[in-house]
Amino acid sequence: MGHHGLVETALIDVRTGSRPVTDITDAVLRFCHGKGDGACLVFVPHATAGVALMEVGSGSDEDLALALESILPRDAEYRHRHGSPGHGRDHVLPAFISPSVLLPVIAGTPTLGTWQSVVLVDTNADNPQRKVRLSFLPG
Amino acid sequence: MGHHGLVETALIDVRTGSRPVTDITDAVLRFCHGKGDGACLVFVPHATAGVALMEVGSGSDEDLALALESILPRDAEYRHRHGSPGHGRDHVLPAFISPSVLLPVIAGTPTLGTWQSVVLVDTNADNPQRKVRLSFLPG
Amino acid sequence: MGHHGLVETALIDVRTGSRPVTDITDAVLRFCHGKGDGACLVFVPHATAGVALMEVGSGSDEDLALALESILPRDAEYRHRHGSPGHGRDHVLPAFISPSVLLPVIAGTPTLGTWQSVVLVDTNADNPQRKVRLSFLPG
Repeated sequence: MGHHGLVETALIDVRTGSRPVTDITDAVLRFCHGKGDGACLVFVPHATAGVALMEVGSGSDEDLALALESILPRDAEYRHRHGSPGHGRDHVLPAFISPSVLLPVIAGTPTLGTWQSVVLVDTNADNPQRKVRLSFLPG
Repeated sequence: MGHHGLVETALIDVRTGSRPVTDITDAVLRFCHGKGDGACLVFVPHATAGVALMEVGSGSDEDLALALESILPRDAEYRHRHGSPGHGRDHVLPAFISPSVLLPVIAGTPTLGTWQSVVLVDTNADNPQRKVRLSFLPG
Repeated sequence: MGHHGLVETALIDVRTGSRPVTDITDAVLRFCHGKGDGACLVFVPHATAGVALMEVGSGSDEDLALALESILPRDAEYRHRHGSPGHGRDHVLPAFISPSVLLPVIAGTPTLGTWQSVVLVDTNADNPQRKVRLSFLPG
């Protein structure tokens, strides 16, 4: 039986605007700072968003947006028709880009690779204000 | 060095029938109930299934099935030819829809978003009876 | 507040060569051996690679490579143009095949299904030597 303490967790606000990819690495680093060894769970409590680890600032975020448009075209026929046109696609996205990613943490620092950033992927421009839950699991 | 206690874990039975998307949220909620703070690992020990977090009941589960048919067509040529026609596709699915998802838990409740359900995604209709392992990691 | 011990973690070397799919199951099993109950985080600190759970040795690894070529064609137009031709695609891959996967562990053994192997997915042949971080989270 594990010990049932209180988990260290925080719900942060992220402004995505109309960008499909929003870098949240700094917020994750700040949350982990001082927390020792373990893992950091990055979790988005929304049904039209995912979390990815990828390089940003070299064009790959635009490439991801184009790949999503090719794989899950906004103007295809979707059963889900609530919201603005193309919103059906937004609801399929989290099956492919999971809203849950776990990062190893050593001495309060996520051990990301040099070119890895933590990004929120959200093609739903109708809701530019998002929440992300960060939780620390001890080692 | 972490403490090496016994993990709280359960292997549950899920009947998928021929549906590609099966809602298992209730079973996850029941498992977490009373377990305090931490995280719940939802893991499918099968090679043709994944776990996703998505809205159900508004058409998005059918949209996911259509998207999978478009991205990984059942009648394309696959090297893997065991089982019934189209089974090759089933074996590629878990690379894109991972069979492992971690949920934050606070006070025995997964902190899912309003529209997030936990679903088993399994396009292999030959095996309508599946297992899902739930494990609780303390905070 | 969780206890802040030292996490059990290891950074292993994986030689991918030019193969897009490399089986690392044995290394994961060796790492978990003797570690009791909990979960094993398999994490790739690279921006062009992912981790998947799938059957190997029956053609599905080649099927995954073909599916990736269809979904994210190497010769499409990408903004990211560093490295050799097609490298732009490699940088989109981890958004769809996450570099982070968590496995349940009981009595030092990951509870993988019979046909599940842990594989590194890496279409970037320019860098045939990779690192994978394994971390044990106690139950």
